[in-house]
Amino acid sequence: MEEEPLSKDWLIGFIEGEGNFNVALSNKKDNPNYPFDIYPMLQFRIFLREDDLNALNKIREFLGVGRIYKKKTEYNRRMGFRAKDQYVYCISHSKELLKLKEIITPTTFHTKKAKDREIFFKILDLKVNKKHLTLEGNEQIINLAKMMNSGMRENFKIKLNNGQKS
Amino acid sequence: MEEEPLSKDWLIGFIEGEGNFNVALSNKKDNPNYPFDIYPMLQFRIFLREDDLNALNKIREFLGVGRIYKKKTEYNRRMGFRAKDQYVYCISHSKELLKLKEIITPTTFHTKKAKDREIFFKILDLKVNKKHLTLEGNEQIINLAKMMNSGMRENFKIKLNNGQKS
Repeated sequence: MEEEPLSKDWLIGFIEGEGNFNVALSNKKDNPNYPFDIYPMLQFRIFLREDDLNALNKIREFLGVGRIYKKKTEYNRRMGFRAKDQYVYCISHSKELLKLKEIITPTTFHTKKAKDREIFFKILDLKVNKKHLTLEGNEQIINLAKMMNSGMRENFKIKLNNGQKS
Repeated sequence: MEEEPLSKDWLIGFIEGEGNFNVALSNKKDNPNYPFDIYPMLQFRIFLREDDLNALNKIREFLGVGRIYKKKTEYNRRMGFRAKDQYVYCISHSKELLKLKEIITPTTFHTKKAKDREIFFKILDLKVNKKHLTLEGNEQIINLAKMMNSGMRENFKIKLNNGQKS
């Protein structure tokens, strides 16, 4: 039973529940040649517990892109949090994200995650067209990222404080 | 776009992400005529943030059963936790849970939630057949509930300590 393949609708429903469209605004030290302080990194992720690794494998197989890795939980444990082992399915390369876009954007999203999806792929298009290398495009991306529904806004504040010179 | 109806596969995928099959083992004071200390209460729930109330409405419409109510967050807030307003879609009546069973059990689940679903509906069948009123059936239900994947086991311990006389 469990080895039946996924359907696209199942995947969309699952992504609306568990998918995470993340725009990390990192400071430029990871990218020495990049002209601005803030570099937008796009990651589409699904975190699942260790015993659901099989589901992540099926998702990767269905989408044909992305990587699966084990999430490091040692830090959380040292800090006294109970943390179950987790695996992460992650797509971060632009080419692979374009493939994801091609598969999931023609389909209706029923939750507010529709907004995150829209902004995420708008930022992807800007990056693919090298707009993040212009001041105007960089600002546009940061402003788009601020409008995302996810935990982004908090994240954004922290990263900005670390990353800005002023 | 957002007003398009759900598909069943979407709903299954979403339930695998966000659905919660809960067996609460309450002590009998809520049910004065019940012969045992522990009464198994079944709840299928989906919690979503206030701005996704529309998605919950669509789900209720699709399944044709269940209720939506606002989750009380005052307590969490008083305790200093940041708590966003949430709505809960909940099915708890046996007749309505049988309807849910009819809709979602013939379909493959791809995650470990398959196990929770199986046990949940096994307990439902026992209750529908009045087995929870026999000592043997009651014990069987408690043992099944212990095997669930969800946060159940923790919950179970607390409830047992409160509910048992010994």
